Order: sequence, then C-alpha cells, then structure tokens
Amino acid sequence: MVQKLADLQVGMDFELPVLINQVNVRTAKNGRRFLDLIFSDASQELPGKYWDASEADVQTFVVGKVVFLTGKCETYQGKLQIKITKMERTADSQYELNQFVPHGPLTKTQLQEQIKALLLEITVPKWNRMVRYLLKQHQSAFYEFPAAKSNHHDYAGGLAFHTLSIARLAEDVCRHYPQVNKPLLLAGTLLHDLGKTSELSGPVGTQYTVKGNLLGHIVIMDAEIVSACAPLKIDPDDEDILLLRHLVVAHHGLNEYGSPKRPQLLEAEILHDLDELDATINMIVKAEKKVQPGQFTERIFGLDNRRFYVPKRNNSQTATPKQTNLNL
Amino acid sequence: MVQKLADLQVGMDFELPVLINQVNVRTAKNGRRFLDLIFSDASQELPGKYWDASEADVQTFVVGKVVFLTGKCETYQGKLQIKITKMERTADSQYELNQFVPHGPLTKTQLQEQIKALLLEITVPKWNRMVRYLLKQHQSAFYEFPAAKSNHHDYAGGLAFHTLSIARLAEDVCRHYPQVNKPLLLAGTLLHDLGKTSELSGPVGTQYTVKGNLLGHIVIMDAEIVSACAPLKIDPDDEDILLLRHLVVAHHGLNEYGSPKRPQLLEAEILHDLDELDATINMIVKAEKKVQPGQFTERIFGLDNRRFYVPKRNNSQTATPKQTNLNL
Amino acid sequence: MVQKLADLQVGMDFELPVLINQVNVRTAKNGRRFLDLIFSDASQELPGKYWDASEADVQTFVVGKVVFLTGKCETYQGKLQIKITKMERTADSQYELNQFVPHGPLTKTQLQEQIKALLLEITVPKWNRMVRYLLKQHQSAFYEFPAAKSNHHDYAGGLAFHTLSIARLAEDVCRHYPQVNKPLLLAGTLLHDLGKTSELSGPVGTQYTVKGNLLGHIVIMDAEIVSACAPLKIDPDDEDILLLRHLVVAHHGLNEYGSPKRPQLLEAEILHDLDELDATINMIVKAEKKVQPGQFTERIFGLDNRRFYVPKRNNSQTATPKQTNLNL
Amino acid sequence: MVQKLADLQVGMDFELPVLINQVNVRTAKNGRRFLDLIFSDASQELPGKYWDASEADVQTFVVGKVVFLTGKCETYQGKLQIKITKMERTADSQYELNQFVPHGPLTKTQLQEQIKALLLEITVPKWNRMVRYLLKQHQSAFYEFPAAKSNHHDYAGGLAFHTLSIARLAEDVCRHYPQVNKPLLLAGTLLHDLGKTSELSGPVGTQYTVKGNLLGHIVIMDAEIVSACAPLKIDPDDEDILLLRHLVVAHHGLNEYGSPKRPQLLEAEILHDLDELDATINMIVKAEKKVQPGQFTERIFGLDNRRFYVPKRNNSQTATPKQTNLNL
Amino acid sequence: MVQKLADLQVGMDFELPVLINQVNVRTAKNGRRFLDLIFSDASQELPGKYWDASEADVQTFVVGKVVFLTGKCETYQGKLQIKITKMERTADSQYELNQFVPHGPLTKTQLQEQIKALLLEITVPKWNRMVRYLLKQHQSAFYEFPAAKSNHHDYAGGLAFHTLSIARLAEDVCRHYPQVNKPLLLAGTLLHDLGKTSELSGPVGTQYTVKGNLLGHIVIMDAEIVSACAPLKIDPDDEDILLLRHLVVAHHGLNEYGSPKRPQLLEAEILHDLDELDATINMIVKAEKKVQPGQFTERIFGLDNRRFYVPKRNNSQTATPKQTNLNL
Amino acid sequence: MVQKLADLQVGMDFELPVLINQVNVRTAKNGRRFLDLIFSDASQELPGKYWDASEADVQTFVVGKVVFLTGKCETYQGKLQIKITKMERTADSQYELNQFVPHGPLTKTQLQEQIKALLLEITVPKWNRMVRYLLKQHQSAFYEFPAAKSNHHDYAGGLAFHTLSIARLAEDVCRHYPQVNKPLLLAGTLLHDLGKTSELSGPVGTQYTVKGNLLGHIVIMDAEIVSACAPLKIDPDDEDILLLRHLVVAHHGLNEYGSPKRPQLLEAEILHDLDELDATINMIVKAEKKVQPGQFTERIFGLDNRRFYVPKRNNSQTATPKQTNLNL
Repeated sequence: MVQKLADLQVGMDFELPVLINQVNVRTAKNGRRFLDLIFSDASQELPGKYWDASEADVQTFVVGKVVFLTGKCETYQGKLQIKITKMERTADSQYELNQFVPHGPLTKTQLQEQIKALLLEITVPKWNRMVRYLLKQHQSAFYEFPAAKSNHHDYAGGLAFHTLSIARLAEDVCRHYPQVNKPLLLAGTLLHDLGKTSELSGPVGTQYTVKGNLLGHIVIMDAEIVSACAPLKIDPDDEDILLLRHLVVAHHGLNEYGSPKRPQLLEAEILHDLDELDATINMIVKAEKKVQPGQFTERIFGLDNRRFYVPKRNNSQTATPKQTNLNL
Repeated sequence: MVQKLADLQVGMDFELPVLINQVNVRTAKNGRRFLDLIFSDASQELPGKYWDASEADVQTFVVGKVVFLTGKCETYQGKLQIKITKMERTADSQYELNQFVPHGPLTKTQLQEQIKALLLEITVPKWNRMVRYLLKQHQSAFYEFPAAKSNHHDYAGGLAFHTLSIARLAEDVCRHYPQVNKPLLLAGTLLHDLGKTSELSGPVGTQYTVKGNLLGHIVIMDAEIVSACAPLKIDPDDEDILLLRHLVVAHHGLNEYGSPKRPQLLEAEILHDLDELDATINMIVKAEKKVQPGQFTERIFGLDNRRFYVPKRNNSQTATPKQTNLNL
Repeated sequence: MVQKLADLQVGMDFELPVLINQVNVRTAKNGRRFLDLIFSDASQELPGKYWDASEADVQTFVVGKVVFLTGKCETYQGKLQIKITKMERTADSQYELNQFVPHGPLTKTQLQEQIKALLLEITVPKWNRMVRYLLKQHQSAFYEFPAAKSNHHDYAGGLAFHTLSIARLAEDVCRHYPQVNKPLLLAGTLLHDLGKTSELSGPVGTQYTVKGNLLGHIVIMDAEIVSACAPLKIDPDDEDILLLRHLVVAHHGLNEYGSPKRPQLLEAEILHDLDELDATINMIVKAEKKVQPGQFTERIFGLDNRRFYVPKRNNSQTATPKQTNLNL
Repeated sequence: MVQKLADLQVGMDFELPVLINQVNVRTAKNGRRFLDLIFSDASQELPGKYWDASEADVQTFVVGKVVFLTGKCETYQGKLQIKITKMERTADSQYELNQFVPHGPLTKTQLQEQIKALLLEITVPKWNRMVRYLLKQHQSAFYEFPAAKSNHHDYAGGLAFHTLSIARLAEDVCRHYPQVNKPLLLAGTLLHDLGKTSELSGPVGTQYTVKGNLLGHIVIMDAEIVSACAPLKIDPDDEDILLLRHLVVAHHGLNEYGSPKRPQLLEAEILHDLDELDATINMIVKAEKKVQPGQFTERIFGLDNRRFYVPKRNNSQTATPKQTNLNL
Repeated sequence: MVQKLADLQVGMDFELPVLINQVNVRTAKNGRRFLDLIFSDASQELPGKYWDASEADVQTFVVGKVVFLTGKCETYQGKLQIKITKMERTADSQYELNQFVPHGPLTKTQLQEQIKALLLEITVPKWNRMVRYLLKQHQSAFYEFPAAKSNHHDYAGGLAFHTLSIARLAEDVCRHYPQVNKPLLLAGTLLHDLGKTSELSGPVGTQYTVKGNLLGHIVIMDAEIVSACAPLKIDPDDEDILLLRHLVVAHHGLNEYGSPKRPQLLEAEILHDLDELDATINMIVKAEKKVQPGQFTERIFGLDNRRFYVPKRNNSQTATPKQTNLNL
Repeated sequence: MVQKLADLQVGMDFELPVLINQVNVRTAKNGRRFLDLIFSDASQELPGKYWDASEADVQTFVVGKVVFLTGKCETYQGKLQIKITKMERTADSQYELNQFVPHGPLTKTQLQEQIKALLLEITVPKWNRMVRYLLKQHQSAFYEFPAAKSNHHDYAGGLAFHTLSIARLAEDVCRHYPQVNKPLLLAGTLLHDLGKTSELSGPVGTQYTVKGNLLGHIVIMDAEIVSACAPLKIDPDDEDILLLRHLVVAHHGLNEYGSPKRPQLLEAEILHDLDELDATINMIVKAEKKVQPGQFTERIFGLDNRRFYVPKRNNSQTATPKQTNLNL
C-alpha cells in the first residue's frame, strides 16, 4: 500500500496526509477557478489541481496546512501529478510539521539545549542579556525557520542548526587563537542570522517577505539590537553594543553580498569566515548525496556554479560508525 | 598689516585670531614635548609647533577652539609655517566658527527657513512627524556639519545645503513625473544623510568616528528611525516606515557603495540619482574654480579620477547677474 | 463584435485591419512556402501563418504595412494564434501608424511645437544652426522613431518624447546651477540620440540596422556633425564644435556602455545623468503599470534585473487630477 | 671633449646644440621669472633653469626648437641639471629633429617607400582612394609623430613604423587564412591610428591635445573618413565605407579601451589582435634592453604591470647577423 | 537511395554505416532498459533508442565504434530521430574514423610531415629532445584529438592542425622580430596543448576526463616535462627547462583563464597571443560558413558572445583559386 | 652597554653580532665601490655602508651570514644608520639564525614533533608515503622558511607553523563533519605550501626565486608529486594521486589568485578556506600588536587594505593565563 508520495507510480490510487507547500488561485480559459497546488511529505513534492474552488476552499487550503488527500497519480507532459478526488483539512494538532518537510539531524529539543549551553559561554553581561532577549522574542521562529530560501540549510530548523554549527567552529577557533574575544564572537554568531525570522516567510513554501526584500536580515537585526537597548536599559552608544552591531552588520563579508561595512574587527572577520565555511560544506555535502562515486555533482549555484567530484574509492576514515558531531 | 593667514609671507610678524584645525601631541628626539598644530582662518591653513607643552596646554589647545596667535611666518622644507611666539585661548563666544572655516553660500538662518518650508510639503503625517523628530534631535549638527570629510560639500553647513539642493531637484522631478510620491521622496531626502552627524566628528578637522567606521551613516540612521517609533507611537512594521527606511538604506544605489539593498522603490531610485547628480555637479564646479579657461582640472577622486575641461570661451548665458539659486 | 485583437478568444471569427509587425519567409518540411507573421494593433500582438506564399505575396506583405485580415482565432501549444482566411493590403494612406503601435502621451504636433520652443533657448548661433540643420535632415524619423528597440520609450514617437523630457530636466538644472552652459546642454540634449534614426530600422518591428550594429548612434551622429560643417560654413575644429561633439560622444557615461570617451565637461556629465534619470523613471513606471499594489514588478533588464515594489497604499499627492507634465 | 649630454659629469663645462623638450614659465618666491626647461639630444634628457626670462625669451625658447647651449653640469637633490650660461636659438634648418629625439630603425624615406608599396595591395578602388586621400592630408605628421605619448613606439616616426609592422603581420595572416579580405585589412591598418596626428601634439614633448582628450583618435578619424566622401564623390553609406569605418572604430577591441563597438568583422578582429601583438612586442623589447641577462625588467604599465625575464643564456638563433626585418 | 544521414527525411527507410557518438544506458518507466544513442557520419548527427538492451549489447555498442544500422527516420517533438530496426557492430578495421567525424583540411600524413619539418627548427638540443620525446609518447592521440571539446578546431585532428597553424605564425613573427628566441617559441608551441590528450576523452563524443577536470592540460603537461627529465637525463632545474615549462604554464595568458602565472617571457607572451589569434580566426570562419552574405553569425560563446557580420559583397582577393595555406 | 640594535641612539658606539639581511654592491659617483647593507638582530633592522669593498669583501659579506660589527650610530635624512668601523665574519656555527630574525612561538623541535604526530593520522599508505617522501626532501627548508615574503607568517619557521595551524583546524572540521576525508585533507595540508621552499630564497632577505616567479609554488609542488611516483613505485594516474594533486593545485581557491583549477573536491575547498582563515587571523593579530586599544590598525594589504579596530576595553576571556594552543 502507498505509504508516502515517493511510492506513487502512474495509475495508482492513494489516501495520504500531505502538506500544502504552495498554492495559487487561478482561472482556466474556460472560466473555472482552481487551486494550483504543490503537496509534500518528507519523501517528495508533487503538484495537483483542485477544480471549482469556492471562496471557502481558498480560505481553507492555504500554505502550511496538512490535508488528507484522496486521489490518483497521473502524468502530464512527462511529469507525475496528482488527480485530486477529495481533499480535507486535518486538525492543526494532528500532525507535526517535521513529518512533512525536510529537516535537520537534531530535534528542536536538542537544538534548544545546545543553544542554552552556549549562552553560558557569553560571559559579558551586556551581550548575554541582549542575546537572551532577542532569542526569546523570536524563539519559535528561530527553531523552525530554514537558514535560507534555498542554497544551504534550507529545511525546517536549519536556521538554528546552522547557527549551532558555526558556534562549534567558533569555540575551536577561540581555543587555537587566544586573542579572539569569545563572548563577542559567540554573541555575534547567535544573532547574525536571527533577522531571517523577519526576512523569510517561514519553514513551508519559504518566500522573501516585503520587509525582507526592502531591508534584508542584516539591517532588520541591527535595528532590533538598538531598539532592545531601551527595555534592557543599556546605552545604545556603549562601545560593546557597537561591536556587537558591527558583527551583525559585517557578517556577509563583502559590500557586494549586502554588508554595508566590511569586517573591521577580528571577531567580525572570523564570524564571516566560519559562516561561509559551514554554508559551503553544507552545500557540497547536500549535492554529493545526489550522485554516485566517480561522478561530478550538479553545478552548485551558491558556489559560483562549480561542480564537485565524488571520488571512486572512499578513503575517509570509516572504521567506526559515524554520528553527527552535534549529537554527542 | 596682516589681516588673514593668506596675507603672510616669509619673515612677517603677525597677531591674528585663528582656529585650531588639527593638533597632535608629540615628543621630539631631544625629549621635549610639543603640539603639532594646523591653524586656519577662512583664507588658508598653516602648520605650527608649540614647544614644551604642559599638561594644561594639552587640555586647552584642542581642535575646534579659536586662539589668538602671535608669531612669525617661516619656511620649512619649502613650505610656509608659523613660528609661535604666544598662543592664547579666546572666549568661546567671542568668534563664530564660520569666520574660520570654509562655508556655503547660505547662512544658517536661511538654511533653517528653507528646510522649514520643505517640511510643509511632507503631507503624510507619519513621515512628517518622523522627519521633524529626528531633525530636531540632530538640529545643531545638521546645520553645522559638512556633507563629507572631503569630496563634495566638504564645508561647514554643507550637509544641510546638500540636502536642500537635492530637495529642490526632487520638487522638479515630482512636477515632471506625477507618478512620484512627493511626501516620501522629500522625507527620504531630508533623512538620507542625517546619520552623518554621528559618522563624522564635526565641521572642524573632520574625521570618521569609530561608530561611523564600524556602522556607517546608513545603518546608524536606519536604527534611529526604528527607535523613534516608540516615543512617536508609530508601529515600526507599518509599511510607510519600511518604505522610509528603504529610502535611507538604499540611497547609495549600489552594494559596492555601502547600501545593503539596492533601490527597489521608484522614489529610492530617484533619491539616489539626485544625490549623485548634486554631489557630482558640486565636485566639478569646485574643481573648475581652481583652473583657467582652456585648462583641465586636476583629477577628481570622487569621479573616477576624471579631469574636466573648462572651455576657452564661456558661452553660457551671462546677460544677467547670477545668484545662487537657493538665495531667492 | 470583435473590435480589436485583444477581444479575440479561441474559436472567434473576425475581420480587422492590423499591422504587419514581423514577417519571415519559411519553408515547411512538406515543401510549402509560408509567411510567418506577427500582427498587431494598439491592443495586442498575435502570430499567424500565411500558407503557399507566392513571390508577389512576399513583396506585398512586408513589415510596417497595414493589411485587412479575415480569420479565426486558434491555439497552438497553449498560445493564441490567427488562422488566416484572407489577407489584403490596404492603401498606405487609409490608416495612421499610431492606430496600430503603442505611442506616447503627446501628438506629433505637440512634440514639434515644444521642440521648436526649445530651439529658441540655444542662443549661441553655431550650436543653434547645427541643431536645426540636423533635426531638419532627420525630421520625420525623429518624431516617429522609438528611443530604443526595447527597454525605455520603446514606442512610436519615443525618441522625441525622451529628448524633450531630458530637456525639461536640463532647464531645471540650469536654473539651480548657474555655472551650467545652457545653450550647450540643450544643443547636446537635442542631438545626443538623433543617430538612432540610422541605428534603428523604424517604429515598427524595430531592429538594429547593419550600420547601427557596426558603428552605433554615437559614432554616426558625431560624423554627421562634422560633415554638416561644410554646408554650414563652420570650421570643424572650432572649439564650440568639439564641445558639442564631446556631449554626443560621451553621453553614455562609461566606456563599457559604448562611449569612447567619458564625460569631461560639466554639461556632458549632466546630459549623461539626466539621460539615465529619464530612462530609469520610464522603465520603472512602465513596469509598475503591469502589477498590483503590494507586488513587485518583473525584473527590469535595463536596471540590472532589479524588481521594484509598488506600495500597498498610495501616499502620493492625489488631491488634483494629474496630467502629464509636458502637456501643459 | 663633451660631444653629447650623456657625456656630462658634475662640474663639466660644455657647449652643445640641444632640443627644448619641455618649457614652463614660472616665477620664483623672490619674484624673478624663469624658464623651467628640459633639454635633450639623442643621448639623454637634462633639466635646466633660464633666469630672468624676458617676454622675448618666452616667445623664442619654445618646445621643439634647437638651441645652442653654453653651461655647466651641476647636481640638485642628487640629480644632474644644467646651469645655463648662455642659450641661443639656432636656425630652423641647421639641424634635423632626428638628431635630438629617439627615433626608429627606418628613415623617413624608407618608411615612405614601404608604405607606398603597401598601397598597391589595396586593390579595391574605394578603399585605395580613401587611404591615399587621408594619408596625403596628414602626410608630414604621419611620418614624424610617435605612435603614443609613452608605452610603445614612443619616438619620432613611431606612428608610421608601428603601422608598417602591423601591415607586415597582416600580409602573413592573409597568406595563411585566405578567407581574410586583404584590401580591407590593409586599408584599415593604414588608417587605424592616423587620428593620432590630431590627438597628440607632435614628436617633441608629446602631449594630448584638447581635441584628443575630448574625442580621441578613433572618433576623429571616423569623422574624417565620412567627411572625405564628399570630395571623393563616394556615397558615405556605401557598405564598403561602413566596413572601413568599423575597422577604425573597433580597433581597440574592448569598450573599456575606448572602442565604442567591439570588432564584428573578421578583419576588424585581426587588426585589433595584430595591433596589440606589435605594441606588446615593442614594449617588452624596449624594457628588456634596460636590464641584464638573468634579471627581470621593470614593471611595464601597458602590460598590466608585468615584469619580463631575460634568460641568462641566449638560445635564440644567432648564427647570422641580424637586421631589422623591415630594412631589407 | 540514402547515402548519408543528411539525406534522411521523415518516413524513409535506410541502411547505413554510422558511428556511435554518445551512448547512455537508461531504464524507461515501464522498466525496459534501452540505449539512448547519438549516431553520426560526416554529414550529420541523429539520435535513436535501442530497446531491451542486453548486457552484451551494453558492452558492444560503445562510443567510438562504427555500426551498420537498419532503420527508419521518424520525428519526435519536432526533431528527426532514428527508429532502429537492426544494429550490428562492424569490424574495427572496416571503416576509418575520418569518414564519420568532421575533420580538418590536412590528412594525418600531411600533418606528420609538417610537424617533422618544424622539429628541425628547434636547434637547441634540450628542447628538441624534450619535444620529440613527449610528442612520441602521445603521437597517436596528438594527430587524432580535437583541439577543444567545442569552440575552435573541434574536429578530429584539430589539435595537430591548430598547433601547426600557430607554428606557422610563430615563424613569421620570428622573421619580423629577430629578438625572439625561435627554438624556444617553437618548442613551447608544439607542447602547449599536448596535455589535451589527457584532458579530453578523444575525437568521438569528446568529454573532459576526471583528470582533465581536476588538473587541466596545463598542469598535466608541466608535470610530464619534469617527469621526462629523468629518462632524458636533463637536470629539471636547468633554466632552459624552466623557460619551456613557463611557456606551457602561461599560455592561457590570464589567471582567469587558468594559467597559474601570466606570461613573463617575450616568447610566452607571443605564444599566448598567437594561440588566441588562431583560435579566434577559426571560430569566426566556422561561424561565417553558416550564414549568408549580409547577415550576422550566431553569437560566438568563445568570443564573448559577439556576432560577426559577413559583408554583402566579397571584396577579398579572389582572382586565383584558394587553397589552405598549409597544403602546399 | 648596547646589547642589541634597538638600544642604539644617535652617537653611540657599539660592538655587536648582527645578521646581514640585504646587501647590494654599488659604486658611488666618486667611483668608490661600497656595500649597501641592511643588518638585523631579533630587535630591529638598520642600514649601513661598507666603503671600498674588495672583491674578497663582496664574496665574504653575503646575505644570511652573521658578522661582528664595530661602529657608531648616526642619522641620515632623519633615519638612523650605522657608520661601520670594522666588520668581521663569524664562524657559521657560532650563532643560531633564530637569534637574529623574527621567529614563531614554537621551536624547530616542537614543530617537528607535532608534524610527526600528524603523519600518523594519514592512514592511507599512498598519501602517507608521498607526504613523508617530499617532507624529507625539503626537511631543512620546511622548518626554516617563512610562509610568505611578507603578509602572513613572514618569519623563520613560519611555513611549518602555518602548516601546523591549518592542520589543527582541519582536525576540528573533520570532527564536526564526518563526511570529510581526513587522510586526504591532512596530506594536502602538509604539502600545499611546500613548494615555497623553491619559490622563496630562504628565511633571510626573502626574495622570490626565478623559478618561483616563472612557475609558482603550486606548479612546482604538483610536478614534484608526479616525479616522486617513480621512486615510490606509485602509478601517477592512480585516482588517489590525482586527488592529492588537485588539493595542491586548487588551494588558492580562485584562478585570479593563481590556482589553475578552482576546488572541485570537498577537501580541496576546506583546505582553501582554512588556509585563508589562518592567514587572515595571523595578519590581523600581527597588525593589532602595533596599535593601542581604541585605535585602528594600519591598512592591511593582504586583506584588501582594510583597517581593523582594537576595542577600548578587552572583554575576551582573561581569567586564566594564555598559552599558544600548539604548545601543549
């Protein structure tokens, strides 16, 4: 029996809970109104059309909701699509989002615990309080949003996972180079992409918001730091606040990539470098999963359209079972 | 008798009130401590050394103060300098800064009146209140600061004069292209460079501040707009506020020039274009004043090191006496 | 009854006068020769095939001619096209081109009057005579050609309208900055794009000519200025002629955009800036017309593929009915 | 006895005919007017000051004139200069310019003969007549001017020599690739840099003229070709004329280097490539002469500041005595 | 009767020997395994599917083999394809590769003889021996490989032909500029692209090898020169070897084009320039063959997407029948 | 008494062992030959002239030798220099180089031990043997050379220290991202800059060698890997060797920085990123040492001329005494 979308082949009937990933209301040449949908579960995405949509249907079947779908698998112009027989909303509490979208290796609880532990290392009170305050304001989004619309860590929870990965590398760098200001580097790491919770629309059918397009997550978070000074009773012109803002402002490294200032602090430079390193590794590993040994990956847009080679023989250390490094 | 620094020739004695434009405390090889100074009045700058400076002297003779100077004009390595006989601080109220620094064609009062008139054209209350609030917060600096450390409008009052010039062009553009949102364009024009009052140190011996270097006037003003929402009881996520922030954020036009976002509103694009147009004309006119008809100017750094030609015969309309356009 | 192409729906029969916008002579796999046509009226463009075209047909049905078309509306690969039943040339004088192509807000007569008025402001005889001479040589094309193949002012009469818009801005700039040589700036404005009458093929099915591709409108007009010196009995090495040539030669601003010299005169720089400003505003306004408030436009190729946002609420001054500024 | 400037050492008296290479009228701090001169003969350049210059002296001692100089060799700030005892103009006919400036390996007569022979290969009458007409108009300058102010072939006669060198390579290319239109390529070669006779001031103290700065030699020559059509009774819109103009217009290859159009004809591309090849070889060979085997040359500005290595052992074919290839 | 692939029209049956140019083993949705093939002869390429391919078929029908094909010509999605009735391998010796792939104007024997003659001009023993040794190692590939996967000289034997063309130009340059070290220039010319025999897969269905992708022909050949020193008993640090390596290493001219060092020897610069010149001419001539007089070619990727114009009237010298220059 | 060069003040006599850092043989205007020297010890560099140098002196006093110097400290043009009274070579074994040149935090023995430990982690025999073989060939230079002529790790032993720092970061990355092939990454790390032992002249008066200029350390090491295959009996076309070569070849990341291929392996990308990270941190820390809290560093050439800010208050973790991370 069909258990997930990836099981479907042409002609099969099925009944499955699926997520509405995208939806557009359209009118056909013959005047009938329909919903142009993309459904997903954790296994795959598939398109489908819901014909003669009423106004109530338009209100009901929106992005991010789980529906119980009855239908048949067809092809159109060589691609699979769903012919919908019946579509019903499920109770919001019945399913968890993570069942239907790609997500990372850690659970939300694991992410929260590890972030909490990191906060203890920010030993300068002003930075510690500022980071706690802003993380709290955006806490649900921080653990649910992806780190990007596409490219790297583009899955639910990707924002927190990417943040955590950089923090792990930052700890290593602080151990090797004692001149680095660890509390500052960690505070900047935790805040650097937090503005993405306003720049992006959410974990499903991720789009840029108008605010995100017009201002960008760098400028958004910078202003939030300043605005937080009043309730936290911190002087916004205190140099420690300027330093933290600079880490956020400069973390894209180059003006061309949207940083109004290039890094001018050792910690700002390191944050930028580690951000790129983690994103780069994530993009390559993601692309390598799709090809066989002895092949090149597809071109990776975020890496100047380079292709990467997966060697025929894997000489990496394989004696012991691997686990993701952050699980331990 | 010597009336101003430009009158001095080698060997002349003089007594003059002058401004301290730059000062550095240094120690000579022989161990004597001295102040390495640059003096100016409206006519010229000249360097001088004040030997055996006490701690009190260091506190007294600081940048931006007017001193009454007794001395002699000498040469050192082919350049004129001042041998100081006596140097005394004057009362802060005795002289006006404008006597000692280059300044623009309009008085502070004229600038204030014309800016005041412009505010009436910002007919959307949210923008009108925001602009009045922020101009008031920075009012003394706004009318005294230059528009830049060097390049264009680099004189006392240049910031307000440059702002006013753009606003005049903006009014013309709104007249020709009725699709333009005039209240938005004028509000953005008035705020776009206001952050320079924090980015630069002031009208004398102008330097970039640490805050200016690490954040830049774009990011500084953006955060001030958001912070002003609380006292003004405006929702910071109101679209009108986003639009105004975008005009500030995007006014450098290109990422490479420090705008984290490129213009994505008609009015943001126009503000950028008029900002460049006014700065460009100012730079060329300033450079042309230094050469004769039939010659090329020096290379202008802010215009990609181009030189501009001053034609031999001036065919411009000269029938009527000219006045600066903003004086009327 | 069908009044214009935009009224057509699948299956409708119609009889309409339409313009031949593009035509290619092709041979099908089965050996039959046909004309592959694109028709237009002011409302829309539609393709159609005219089968078994004789040599006489090829001579008759050429770009820029109006035909009376009898046919039916069909679809092919999801797009509307015309099945031609009958196609007949109309008398050249029967219809006016403006009925069939997009055109600007001013009539040809209005454009001519306003250009005529501008000529009076070119008070230096050499420039005045040169401009009159060259405008006269290209007078019919100047008022009929578009300003570009696509991008901005890409409609019949766009060349003259764009020229006039820049001249209006130029007058404003001369009022604000009295150092500007107004006769020179206006003369350069009127000639700067006149070479497009040789660079482009005309207002219908606009293509680059071979001359346009190999030389470009800048080089073309520069040589025409020099060639005009003989009949006008002006010394081609007179500095005033060099200045005017420089305005034409430098008006693209950057070498990369096809100017062999960058602007080195105040007026050349201003002409370039205003040319860009007017083209930019035109492109944005054109794109904004196609989307709803709260949406972003399509990417605009001529503006580095930026998209522009149309705010939800229109705060522009709307108390009085608007008119295009040039109509008054 | 001192025979040439290169013989001079500190303290030597001398009497020599020398060329005035540069001259500036200046006033010293003490009010005395002097001529600041640079003299040269074929061996070297040396500066000198001529004190208390009368108005007649200013008129007499101008760039490009030969003077008979009596003086002594001194040092000033570590560099040799001339203390002038007496300076007298010589008769214009007494000396030949080539005695005092660097010049190429061929005499003017040799250059003229070889160019004349080349004209026979331009077998298409329109191009042949155009080239003859324009060469005749600029004939004295063509054989005396350098090919550039500095960089390559920057000596008297360099323009004609560089032209000839390219033509030699062009003949070879035509022999190897029979698709190349030889008459067109040679006609374009002969005209491509001819506009330098207006762009530059001449063979001595070479400067850019105002016309050269504002228009450049490409635009200058293009317009001259068009203007020549009237006296030659050639239709300026004849395709052959467009092709020839394109070769001139496109010969810098890139917009960035001042060509308003990039090459779009096989012959235009080849002309550009050979122009660069000859200039490049000339620059390297010139720089290599100044260093020893086993050393790198100075950085060559015209070649992106590269340095070139002169191998320790010269393995080039050296069995037979060498002659410059064009001498034969 | 059908003699070659270019004769085929829809519905025709045929029997022809053809080359397998590309082959992919795929599985259809219905589970049947098929070979997705591209066949060619000297006239054209056509695709076809071979259904229900056994493992033996997969081993038999590989790229570069000639098969005798029985089938019918069909269309699929508007393009011609082959419906295969029967497909049989031919004996390897039965056909010559050149019958089925595009190739150059010279036969392999002609190429070999001319290369052999060139070797005599490399009069320095170290270079002569090195070149002979490496050419011998790659001799069959050198005369069969194309010079590139696409772009220029992309046909069987193109590598040797391109090498020979550059060498011919190099001889001319040495004649004109006696400072050039001819043995070095010729040695570098012969080796510069020889690494392509490892970088590319061969003359049929040319692909980049993994080695080619990861290292490139420049690095590959550089290391081979060094490795050859041991068997040839040449000191790898001898300056003559460094010079030769530099010619190989720098021949792409710019770092951006894959040369780790830019040319720093006169001969390295010339090799780069002539390499570009020959490739450029080849690309233009190839593109011009596809269009009619009076038309522009398609955009040429390798020449920055420029299009080239083929003049209406051919004014090139046409009195005598042309032959390719290398045939004589 | 004077113990080191940094103790010297004008007029002091001294006797000190110092290193000859640079030497040039010159001839004064008066014909006397002298050595123009730069001396150093670990504290400072100072220039001096040794007059009337005999041929034996030229052979004796060469770069990298320690001399015992008797002299006096003078000034010339405002800078200190040494007036040499007596200069004698010391025995080569009497002093250690590290006494006279800046060097890193680890001794040669410490470096050797830590590198030795790293080799154990290269668990793939082919890579392990290759790395051991090449390190052994260059072992003395590897531990004595700087990592660069200037910029980063520009001190004796810098090459090994920089290599070790990257290896430490590489171990961390392998711990966090188990997909990384650790033996390959470490092998590439150890070899990536080893070619600098041929590219640079040595730890004293470091210059680029001719070989370094013409080929660069990337190409040099690549060829050495291939040449080592014969004695190590490894097939040079084994994929593992290609992978290792690719890491060396691609480690500069961009073509513009001299890598003929950009990284196309996960490990190659990581090696490049860590190489940059370590060099960047080293450059910033070096520059920060020269300024006070609250100041910006000088512009750092290797970081696009950026200046870095040293905060007023140091908030970095300072509770425990710091040690360099590699000492433990």
